[in-house]
Amino acid sequence: MVGQNFVRFLQGHPWFDLTWLGASDRSAGKKYKDAMNWNLAGGVPAAMADLTVEESKPGNAPRVLFSAMDASVATDIERAFAAAGHVVVSNSRNHRMERDVPLLVPEINADHLRLVPAQKARGWKGEIVTNPNCSTIGLTMGLGPLKQFGITKIIVTTMQAISGAGYPGVASMDIVGNVVPYIGMEEEKMEMETQKIMGQFCGDHIEPLPAQVSAHCNRVAVVDGHTETVSIAFSSKPSEADLRAAFESFTAVPQERELPSAPRNPVIYMNEQNRPQPRKDAEREGGMAAFVGRLRPCPVLDYKFVVLSHNTIRGAAGAAVLNAELMHSEGMLAG
Amino acid sequence: MVGQNFVRFLQGHPWFDLTWLGASDRSAGKKYKDAMNWNLAGGVPAAMADLTVEESKPGNAPRVLFSAMDASVATDIERAFAAAGHVVVSNSRNHRMERDVPLLVPEINADHLRLVPAQKARGWKGEIVTNPNCSTIGLTMGLGPLKQFGITKIIVTTMQAISGAGYPGVASMDIVGNVVPYIGMEEEKMEMETQKIMGQFCGDHIEPLPAQVSAHCNRVAVVDGHTETVSIAFSSKPSEADLRAAFESFTAVPQERELPSAPRNPVIYMNEQNRPQPRKDAEREGGMAAFVGRLRPCPVLDYKFVVLSHNTIRGAAGAAVLNAELMHSEGMLAG
Amino acid sequence: MVGQNFVRFLQGHPWFDLTWLGASDRSAGKKYKDAMNWNLAGGVPAAMADLTVEESKPGNAPRVLFSAMDASVATDIERAFAAAGHVVVSNSRNHRMERDVPLLVPEINADHLRLVPAQKARGWKGEIVTNPNCSTIGLTMGLGPLKQFGITKIIVTTMQAISGAGYPGVASMDIVGNVVPYIGMEEEKMEMETQKIMGQFCGDHIEPLPAQVSAHCNRVAVVDGHTETVSIAFSSKPSEADLRAAFESFTAVPQERELPSAPRNPVIYMNEQNRPQPRKDAEREGGMAAFVGRLRPCPVLDYKFVVLSHNTIRGAAGAAVLNAELMHSEGMLAG
Amino acid sequence: MVGQNFVRFLQGHPWFDLTWLGASDRSAGKKYKDAMNWNLAGGVPAAMADLTVEESKPGNAPRVLFSAMDASVATDIERAFAAAGHVVVSNSRNHRMERDVPLLVPEINADHLRLVPAQKARGWKGEIVTNPNCSTIGLTMGLGPLKQFGITKIIVTTMQAISGAGYPGVASMDIVGNVVPYIGMEEEKMEMETQKIMGQFCGDHIEPLPAQVSAHCNRVAVVDGHTETVSIAFSSKPSEADLRAAFESFTAVPQERELPSAPRNPVIYMNEQNRPQPRKDAEREGGMAAFVGRLRPCPVLDYKFVVLSHNTIRGAAGAAVLNAELMHSEGMLAG
Repeated sequence: MVGQNFVRFLQGHPWFDLTWLGASDRSAGKKYKDAMNWNLAGGVPAAMADLTVEESKPGNAPRVLFSAMDASVATDIERAFAAAGHVVVSNSRNHRMERDVPLLVPEINADHLRLVPAQKARGWKGEIVTNPNCSTIGLTMGLGPLKQFGITKIIVTTMQAISGAGYPGVASMDIVGNVVPYIGMEEEKMEMETQKIMGQFCGDHIEPLPAQVSAHCNRVAVVDGHTETVSIAFSSKPSEADLRAAFESFTAVPQERELPSAPRNPVIYMNEQNRPQPRKDAEREGGMAAFVGRLRPCPVLDYKFVVLSHNTIRGAAGAAVLNAELMHSEGMLAG
Repeated sequence: MVGQNFVRFLQGHPWFDLTWLGASDRSAGKKYKDAMNWNLAGGVPAAMADLTVEESKPGNAPRVLFSAMDASVATDIERAFAAAGHVVVSNSRNHRMERDVPLLVPEINADHLRLVPAQKARGWKGEIVTNPNCSTIGLTMGLGPLKQFGITKIIVTTMQAISGAGYPGVASMDIVGNVVPYIGMEEEKMEMETQKIMGQFCGDHIEPLPAQVSAHCNRVAVVDGHTETVSIAFSSKPSEADLRAAFESFTAVPQERELPSAPRNPVIYMNEQNRPQPRKDAEREGGMAAFVGRLRPCPVLDYKFVVLSHNTIRGAAGAAVLNAELMHSEGMLAG
Repeated sequence: MVGQNFVRFLQGHPWFDLTWLGASDRSAGKKYKDAMNWNLAGGVPAAMADLTVEESKPGNAPRVLFSAMDASVATDIERAFAAAGHVVVSNSRNHRMERDVPLLVPEINADHLRLVPAQKARGWKGEIVTNPNCSTIGLTMGLGPLKQFGITKIIVTTMQAISGAGYPGVASMDIVGNVVPYIGMEEEKMEMETQKIMGQFCGDHIEPLPAQVSAHCNRVAVVDGHTETVSIAFSSKPSEADLRAAFESFTAVPQERELPSAPRNPVIYMNEQNRPQPRKDAEREGGMAAFVGRLRPCPVLDYKFVVLSHNTIRGAAGAAVLNAELMHSEGMLAG
Repeated sequence: MVGQNFVRFLQGHPWFDLTWLGASDRSAGKKYKDAMNWNLAGGVPAAMADLTVEESKPGNAPRVLFSAMDASVATDIERAFAAAGHVVVSNSRNHRMERDVPLLVPEINADHLRLVPAQKARGWKGEIVTNPNCSTIGLTMGLGPLKQFGITKIIVTTMQAISGAGYPGVASMDIVGNVVPYIGMEEEKMEMETQKIMGQFCGDHIEPLPAQVSAHCNRVAVVDGHTETVSIAFSSKPSEADLRAAFESFTAVPQERELPSAPRNPVIYMNEQNRPQPRKDAEREGGMAAFVGRLRPCPVLDYKFVVLSHNTIRGAAGAAVLNAELMHSEGMLAG
């Protein structure tokens, strides 16, 4: 499904043309429309329907590749492409926590791209950059404006959409009228990835943010949009007005450079007391912003708030494309 | 709807006969079946259908009354009944935080019943006892076994069922495929009520538990059953095995006295990694137990876990009936 | 909610500017953003937020008015506007079955506009035109291509979205995990309106299509999009290929005139065996087309198929705007 | 999942003890609790949890077997058991339409059991009896009381629960906030099975009811309970009062013999204009009755109404158990 989201998201992109599709042996040789079951609204984009799927091997592939591979195969294939000189912009989890691989959220840690040269030590002619897990992106987008105040503790509870589990993914018998208070490996990913994303570039690695992070991950009967409740503590506690202003004025590299997929405002603060809500808000701003609301004091940590983001757009395909746009703006894609 | 739950829950009760129904002027004089829109599965119990509804005034009413009145009218009416010598066992929120009114969860604070005599100072011949808000009951049931370790901090995020908002309650346009990250006054209730319930009886009042409590309350598309994620810290941090044993061995006054509505085990610890779940578990044990799972260390506080309870049974009608059973076992209902 | 849909749908319209908002006394004088609770995704369009709402009376109102009034007040107010010389393009049900009022689906019965002059007999300087009920529009769009074969019998079962009931509309306790096999007056509307829409213009009235129509109307837990199963019989039974070709080649006045809101193809035939589906298909083509699938023989009548349309776009605001566009293309709005 | 429903349904049965569990090679030798993923509320019944699952072969198996086998294997295995002298009471679809196999709904066609002796011609020492598809059972229960009026035409549209598709079954991405207007082979099953069930026993086969039956089958986001809208015509059209009386007074062999799983009234007519509803009504009467409502004239056929039944109880496990009880009451299970 992330692959389908890439195909949809890249339609009409001003900088990138989707010209090549790689898949497993089983699909290679088929037309794209015959190689998968299209699950998104709107049908297979006409321009891609008849493209022939090729085997996921370096060779005919173009220089820049978006990877939505299953974790069971991504390690070897992504490395093969990187070794052969390709730029692998990956949504897979396999390389995210590797010491020399940037885990990017362009609004938060664009400078982590400076880690890429360290990959030369692997003997690769190309490189791998990654974006975080869908629930981590929403959280870190919400945390980005607050980093200046010295984040020390985060407790987050997620209510995650079913599209995050792919297709067929979550069985309807498990989620209609229900909550599943567990998503395999999700809490570990959120806790580690957040520390790396918010961390400090130190030449050949990222020094993780020394904050304690605790995640409770749940699945709910929502189609798109992960909602997260956050309690947070700071080394120097700001006022509520300071925090509010930080959310509202937040802007970063993607906005300054006017990257094509960058939302005008990466964080939208909503004043209504019962927002943000996934079905009503996640698709706003093209699904690329994070929506924050309900900022208020927390009796245990310092403050609490709600953050929402679109898990298959900002949390997957859109995230990787924005990463590629950032690299392009740095001149890193020029072959 | 809580009234309907009382009617259903009391059918066939071994100690209590439902003989009188009070309502507003508008309904008084009608047969029960004509005075309301029955919204629960199974239809109006035949024994009650033709009972004539009377006005909510002391007079013909029996000595012991269950109150499910709307907060907008409960203060005056409940006081009038108490003044006239009735025992008002209330699910309404109005008197919960009054200094001389017990806020009971019989497994947690049966001794708070000793507060009742302090109500004599109001000049009442009768009395009022209350049960907590539905989301608070689930939380405190889960906390009960842990009180011995000295609870100091609690952060809880709820995913609450739509039945908790009554009928018509939550509009379907607000909750189908959605999450609403706000429930009016719910967080305040959970934070204050929890401290009172877990607090210390001190003669004429309850000294609240000096723990910090922070609640994030959300509505999800579940019919019955509030799911809550909890992070918790203790003054003397127990081992995970200690906590686990505390959950599994927990038993209290209602179990010892074999009160008719008491669950055999007030807390059920579930070993499956993706449980408890509201649609699959809330109705077990007659809807009167709390279901706990996923106990694990919390990187910010000491531990975290999930707790689930049935919001209209254990969280409302069943709670009040168990309170009355506790009073009966103390001889407090003997007229 | 239909009013909000009008506001959203008219944003950026090439022919119409929304310059005036009328409402009840209670709202008059307020800014639009303060006068209602915006329930659609995306927030109140900025251009309208600060427009002052006026009382629903002729006077300052512009010549052409879209009406989304509640049925309880629409009769008198719409007539007052028509009498005063306004063109009332109404989504309300009140005048739909009046003998001299066109009930328009521009792809089906554009010629029914010729009924308008008959309204002069009422002494009105202006006029009223109407669009059908949301479930009727989808059905008649699906029937349009088949009219040529002489429709004699129709049995339709609807599975209607909750947005069709407005806000707060359907209580979540009634529809989460449920089906409600009844919608007040909906079956009567579908049966009568279909006969009028498919009927023959006869100078001063419409002679209803002499087909038998039977509707079963149900509410399901879908946000937008009414799905309908249809069994149909013809006076001269066509082949399945004929029917299929009729669906696929259907085009009508709005397409010929390239009306701004007209879908390129008013009926989209979907080949997948499990389509159309409301969540995946209703928003395609801007929500203005009908989606048909599963054409196959019916063992009782001649054929059966499924039709889907977007109930708040094609079934309400979009329908009325397309009616106004049709009138504009006829020169009927020139003041 | 049907197997799990059998295990749950047979707990505490007055006539039958569940003593043996057969499954594929893969599961044989495991304890029941380890051999499957229990998906029903309430957990694995304690009495069965430690029973060792055996291979599905005649041998140690008891004389009477309930079969919930997958259609891909049921033909051969069920025949092997029947040949070896077992009574196979099957919920699988494989033998339903075989000429010499009864397709039973005990309230409708108990006399079809007389078909069993014809199976001797296959050289079997035992026999196979079957129950219909879950959506057919609800329909035929609703039709049973009406058979006396000479049914000639039936058009039915189903809105079927997700539990009917087993586990994992329907993907949540396909059904949350959606309708799927297609269920593989379901329409064909409903049309053929209905004719056989309502047909006439003729010595060595069943002469199908010569009525035209047309089914439209849909999946909706309901957990349990298939809702069906029915239009019907008769050879001698009864009055609405006659039909109503037929529904309300219906009783049959299972009721006369007081079979343990028989509902007191097999058909419950509901007077409320918006009932029956699956979430509120399907579980009433132990899930074994059919609920009918909204009887009214049909402008195309003679009458229309709504029928609801519980698809995993009356439509599967409960149906087979009732079949076995019927056979027991005929002395057919005595070994």
